[in-house]
Amino acid sequence: MFLAKIYVTLKEGVLDPQGNAVGKALHSMNYKEVQKVKVGKYVELYIEGENAEEVGKRVDEICGKLLVNPVVEQYSYELVEV
Amino acid sequence: MFLAKIYVTLKEGVLDPQGNAVGKALHSMNYKEVQKVKVGKYVELYIEGENAEEVGKRVDEICGKLLVNPVVEQYSYELVEV
Repeated sequence: MFLAKIYVTLKEGVLDPQGNAVGKALHSMNYKEVQKVKVGKYVELYIEGENAEEVGKRVDEICGKLLVNPVVEQYSYELVEV
Repeated sequence: MFLAKIYVTLKEGVLDPQGNAVGKALHSMNYKEVQKVKVGKYVELYIEGENAEEVGKRVDEICGKLLVNPVVEQYSYELVEV
């Protein structure tokens, strides 16, 4: 069994209103050292499979079909054997 | 400048309707090898600071005050110098 830790973020240049809102909130709380905030999704999939290569292919399929909107989002993932 | 990669997930035992919905969708798409899905937040903070220890304290404060609901959520983070 593998645990896939998937990070989905907005592509560079895509407006991130949630990130901007968090950034403004932090500035109003006097955390002036925060320069920029980006908010994305974090998905953990527990997935059966023989080896990391096979599971990686499956994760790419799942991201492409369901988890990620390729027009505005990008993703990366790590696989951990559990 | 540091980049803090913050992962916020629901605590064990807390109902995760979004994760369950993704899990059901994947099963209906015939990805039967997916055993469990958890959905959380991924936040990137670009933050000025002298050293990792100081920035880490700031990130803990920010998570405690704004990003994380400690009743139902837990978080972890990585710091990368950028």
